Amino acid sequence: MSETSPGDVPRVRGKRPPQGDPVVDRALALLSAFDAAHPSLTLGELARRSGIPTSSALRLAGRLVAWGALERDAEGRFTVGLRLWEVASLAPRARGLRQVAMPFLGDLEEVTRQHVLLAVREGGDAVLLERLSAHAAIPVLYSVGGRLPLHSTGVGLVLLAYAEADVQEEYLSRPLLHEPERTPVSEAALRRTLADVRREGMAHFRRKVPRPIVSVAAPVFDAADRLAAAVSVVVPQEGADARVLGPAVRTAARAISRGLGARRPLGPGR
Amino acid sequence: MSETSPGDVPRVRGKRPPQGDPVVDRALALLSAFDAAHPSLTLGELARRSGIPTSSALRLAGRLVAWGALERDAEGRFTVGLRLWEVASLAPRARGLRQVAMPFLGDLEEVTRQHVLLAVREGGDAVLLERLSAHAAIPVLYSVGGRLPLHSTGVGLVLLAYAEADVQEEYLSRPLLHEPERTPVSEAALRRTLADVRREGMAHFRRKVPRPIVSVAAPVFDAADRLAAAVSVVVPQEGADARVLGPAVRTAARAISRGLGARRPLGPGR
Repeated sequence: MSETSPGDVPRVRGKRPPQGDPVVDRALALLSAFDAAHPSLTLGELARRSGIPTSSALRLAGRLVAWGALERDAEGRFTVGLRLWEVASLAPRARGLRQVAMPFLGDLEEVTRQHVLLAVREGGDAVLLERLSAHAAIPVLYSVGGRLPLHSTGVGLVLLAYAEADVQEEYLSRPLLHEPERTPVSEAALRRTLADVRREGMAHFRRKVPRPIVSVAAPVFDAADRLAAAVSVVVPQEGADARVLGPAVRTAARAISRGLGARRPLGPGR
Repeated sequence: MSETSPGDVPRVRGKRPPQGDPVVDRALALLSAFDAAHPSLTLGELARRSGIPTSSALRLAGRLVAWGALERDAEGRFTVGLRLWEVASLAPRARGLRQVAMPFLGDLEEVTRQHVLLAVREGGDAVLLERLSAHAAIPVLYSVGGRLPLHSTGVGLVLLAYAEADVQEEYLSRPLLHEPERTPVSEAALRRTLADVRREGMAHFRRKVPRPIVSVAAPVFDAADRLAAAVSVVVPQEGADARVLGPAVRTAARAISRGLGARRPLGPGR
């Protein structure tokens, strides 16, 4: 009863939420059930993780499979479908930015022979748009399409340092933990770090676990001179030379900014 | 009236399709309205291209925006949302394959300094999963997430040559045109080409427009020794040396196959 659209059929009191299209919301909830730790789900898992009764979940998943948003593998497990990926790759922030950035990211990867990351801010997280990794690169925590904490990654610090003041204040007002160590973040220390990032035009972030790494990140600006993304290089701490990495990362970030049409590739006011 | 789910409310004769969840199908139709030529749409365009009345389109698009499947830009145009891209990047064929392939694609791009493509077959098309392009690379027709014709691209010929017999026959039974020239394809010539591809373990494809290019492509096999993807290098015809490109592309394809767990990286029976 809860799966009717507003205005089209008589409402049954108490059986449907007051607004929205519950069917669509349920279909989207099925998509939300997938994440990096759960890229394939049985029907039971899909129902449990989305909070949708199994019979509804099966019917809705059937529609999503018919269109190609989901696929079903040989064992009957549901996965995200290639057709959804096709449509999603039209997302302007993923597509336009990536297209401009890729050759420069490739250069950075060639020079550093480790990991090169491109990320954008989405709400209170960084979303990893691209990661180029050399064969011999050290293991890292994050993969493409995944979310990264703003306060404990190089790209995240850049995205936070150049975010609008209200976004920053909202973020700083939360209790924050360093990831993956789960130790508390001092708000005062984070404020100092963000000021440093803005002053230097780049972030240096060091992490000890799972192994000691250094991330050097710089901001990318768009044609309206707004922050568009952050680019970083992640290397093992041993042997890392920030004096070399900094200029390389900033040069790539400026080149990408120019490619996006930024008039001030170092950012507004600089 | 057509937006009710089966079995939940009284059916109104003639007003709804006999099966499925029309609301979900309509929401998916909104997503289908976007393509490479139409990455951003006004509400009117969205309604027209999806065949959904404007009022329904607006309401459904609102739900999709609330979840993040769509975004609305400063001019009120709808675009595909980053949240959809996040979920979609969990698609196993896009993600697992890309993760294994990227370092090898990077090597190929470094060696050839032109375009490197990774594609999979989806129905009667190739879908471009990845394209690495050097700064100075020649312009090419296809971009990531786009569809390529199987019979007039290097990766497409490989994907078709190693497809199941029924897929091949179905494809060969259609009237086909070379793209982008729009000249007819001879079925007999295409059959010979596919046999050549299987015998040589790679495809050589030449195209004159928009400018003369050569594509050299090779198959990638998965852990079940089934065709998983095709990888290619696209270079200007002038100066192209197939004797050099062939081994490079085949080596990269074999490396990716081994990375996927293939026991026979040259393909079943070889």
